[in-house]
Amino acid sequence: MILKKPALYTDLYELTMAQGYFLSGRHQQTASFDYFFRSLPFDGGYVVFAGLGDLLEIIRYFRFHPEELEYLRSQGFKEEFLSFLKDFEFKGSVYSVKEGEIVFPNEPILRVEGTIVEAQILETVLLNTLNFASLIATKASRIKQAAGDHAVVDFGLRRAQGLGGLQASKASVIGGFQGTSNVLAGKMDDIPINGTMAHSWIQSFEDELTAFRTYAEHYPDSSILLVDTYSTLKKGVPNAIKVAKELEEKGHKLVGIRLDSGDLAYFARKSRQMMDDAGLEYVKIAASNQLDEHLIKSLLDQGAPIDLFGVGTKLVTAYDDPALDGVYKLSSINGKPTLKISENEEKVTLPDSKKIIRYFNEDGSFYSDGIALNDEENPSVIYHPYIAHRSTIVSELESEELLHNVVNKGEIMIDPPTVQESAEYARMRLSKLNDEHKRFDNPHVYKVGLSKKLRELKIELIQNA
Amino acid sequence: MILKKPALYTDLYELTMAQGYFLSGRHQQTASFDYFFRSLPFDGGYVVFAGLGDLLEIIRYFRFHPEELEYLRSQGFKEEFLSFLKDFEFKGSVYSVKEGEIVFPNEPILRVEGTIVEAQILETVLLNTLNFASLIATKASRIKQAAGDHAVVDFGLRRAQGLGGLQASKASVIGGFQGTSNVLAGKMDDIPINGTMAHSWIQSFEDELTAFRTYAEHYPDSSILLVDTYSTLKKGVPNAIKVAKELEEKGHKLVGIRLDSGDLAYFARKSRQMMDDAGLEYVKIAASNQLDEHLIKSLLDQGAPIDLFGVGTKLVTAYDDPALDGVYKLSSINGKPTLKISENEEKVTLPDSKKIIRYFNEDGSFYSDGIALNDEENPSVIYHPYIAHRSTIVSELESEELLHNVVNKGEIMIDPPTVQESAEYARMRLSKLNDEHKRFDNPHVYKVGLSKKLRELKIELIQNA
Repeated sequence: MILKKPALYTDLYELTMAQGYFLSGRHQQTASFDYFFRSLPFDGGYVVFAGLGDLLEIIRYFRFHPEELEYLRSQGFKEEFLSFLKDFEFKGSVYSVKEGEIVFPNEPILRVEGTIVEAQILETVLLNTLNFASLIATKASRIKQAAGDHAVVDFGLRRAQGLGGLQASKASVIGGFQGTSNVLAGKMDDIPINGTMAHSWIQSFEDELTAFRTYAEHYPDSSILLVDTYSTLKKGVPNAIKVAKELEEKGHKLVGIRLDSGDLAYFARKSRQMMDDAGLEYVKIAASNQLDEHLIKSLLDQGAPIDLFGVGTKLVTAYDDPALDGVYKLSSINGKPTLKISENEEKVTLPDSKKIIRYFNEDGSFYSDGIALNDEENPSVIYHPYIAHRSTIVSELESEELLHNVVNKGEIMIDPPTVQESAEYARMRLSKLNDEHKRFDNPHVYKVGLSKKLRELKIELIQNA
Repeated sequence: MILKKPALYTDLYELTMAQGYFLSGRHQQTASFDYFFRSLPFDGGYVVFAGLGDLLEIIRYFRFHPEELEYLRSQGFKEEFLSFLKDFEFKGSVYSVKEGEIVFPNEPILRVEGTIVEAQILETVLLNTLNFASLIATKASRIKQAAGDHAVVDFGLRRAQGLGGLQASKASVIGGFQGTSNVLAGKMDDIPINGTMAHSWIQSFEDELTAFRTYAEHYPDSSILLVDTYSTLKKGVPNAIKVAKELEEKGHKLVGIRLDSGDLAYFARKSRQMMDDAGLEYVKIAASNQLDEHLIKSLLDQGAPIDLFGVGTKLVTAYDDPALDGVYKLSSINGKPTLKISENEEKVTLPDSKKIIRYFNEDGSFYSDGIALNDEENPSVIYHPYIAHRSTIVSELESEELLHNVVNKGEIMIDPPTVQESAEYARMRLSKLNDEHKRFDNPHVYKVGLSKKLRELKIELIQNA
């Protein structure tokens, strides 16, 4: 986390509401809020949850510092409330699915319990953190899925949305990327860093061969030569072959070449042929230039012999769907369940504290999820959220509860997951999600149902309203 | 700037190339690089340049700190190069258009001169900063244009791309927004902060009227009441009217109501009528919910009586075009002009150090821009970049050079522009851009030509290559 003082990274209304609760003596009311999203990005079938590690850091550092209080004073906040903020620490509890978990719309994937002020005041920074990390981890997992066993590396920093680039690189690795070009992300989160060379390196030399030779001299075992500066097939690849042969004579090996323009399938095939003819079967081909999951799938479907994909803009900005619509909604106040009604049936929220139960098929793959009240037994039947006659029997299935107590009355209960741990968990969980939910075109909808009690409570509260 | 140590916020290859130059004794070569973009975002007609203030801060703070050098050591960088980095400071020069300037594709809007290492090593962080800030300032200016004299406020932090939210709020104000909900952006960049209330405030009370009353009690002169929690017209607006009347009795005024769902045109008209009938003509209507320039234009075209627009996701992520394609290309090395050729004519870069001249019509509006070699006189005719027979005579026109020396041999030459100064400059310059370049549908292409000498140099270098 680069943001060591997260308390003001928030919408003003969180603070004006907090002051309102405080001044009207209502700040000790207890509340619980759910984090969930309503629709799946990229016309896809799932989301990879990420950002929990960062959120735990935010909670750890959540304090109002003197210069922050001074700023709030200048904005008209009252002295008695500023005194309250001065001593403020988050003493609530957080229940969350694991970072890397595969999750679906309307599931309460994270719940915050505490006083109304401490639960409310986290809203904006929590949404900002979880929405973006989950969006990018999901995009990355799709790209990795298209690439199969081929390596995918994040090259997106230059087009990332400002400092969002830091979080994007981390989330990419959680989603299945093997590394990033982003050095600071590498340092902060212990992620492998990778890179090749720019056109400017080559242009700064008298000719391409000298540029390649000089680079290879200093990086005899880690050079990937960019071959498209002048002419990929007439100059770039022949020069790379020459340098590879010179490296061989000195007992080294050229790692690869990089293609960054033109028809990547055509150039990859031609380059592969030229290098193979020269006995350089071991030299890899890296490709970049506006890649995403669809383009990578198309290249591999065409049999393009590309070993490594550098993915930039389309990954780090989630170009085709640049925001996850995650929200944070009140589900109970002073122990009393509440919901937000809406004329749009899908936008009615779920009341009260809940758990998520995942049910498994006999082969260990995910069957469906159920949402139940926290204090009821795991249900034997789950029901469609609002279509009356739809239900499914789950009593015979293996099951697992997904929410874990990660912060208890202010105390952080887990070691924040490392990027590699979350990546491994996501990989393992994705392998249990059946292919029909993972395909890019019209993925099959994964079933998420409600317990009878939860559905009845929801209907009762709607009727009362 | 939240990033106080920007040197590692870069692609690895910038550092491996720098080490390559250093180890081969080529690091003292001089180089110049141009920053420019190739295509206009949002199918629009212009870009508002932003991010210069942040870039100057980055240059000011650009050092390699001990723990950063330690990390690079762990990644295999050589001791002699690490010693060089230890003492590294940017001692080059930067020429830039003003923050807030209206700019067009392929113009070298910022140039970095220095040793090859110092100019190269800035690339990634420069692109990351300028691309995103310019993208959002441009989006904001389009939204402000649609809103006309109505206020527009940034409410996007919860859906922003992580910490990019900080830079987005700042750039929004440069583009014409009057404020943001983002408290930290307000504090860091002295931007007005705004806010209303969330649904959870209302849900946490026994009823909506009590929730409104309590808020108004503590914010008697700054309340904007959210009226759509239960039923906008049956409950929300009548309750807001009741509270407004109670405030009047105490000598205060309700500022406004906020609509956040449903048909905003319909609800705004109905709410306006109800409030006017109650003698509350002064109470404003704020609207939010997935707004962008097109939706705001449509609402105002329908005559919706909305006074303030809260714009979120579509603004801060530049939803319909989430990356500006800015690049950074070598234009000379050791005083020798160079260019990057490409099979795609539009992608051939412009050689050598250049200036941009803006020509004005008699009424003071922008006529066209010319790009010329830095050491030639301002041209009297400018030529289409590659279509041979197109040219325009500019000798009789008022003109102005757009590039200014903002960093000279490492010394920052200007006070970094404040957000308000850049916003005012953008507003003034946009007023000089004729409407046909600003319209949303098929905007007229603004002409950018080359001097004869520059065009001839470009052709000569292509033929040599």
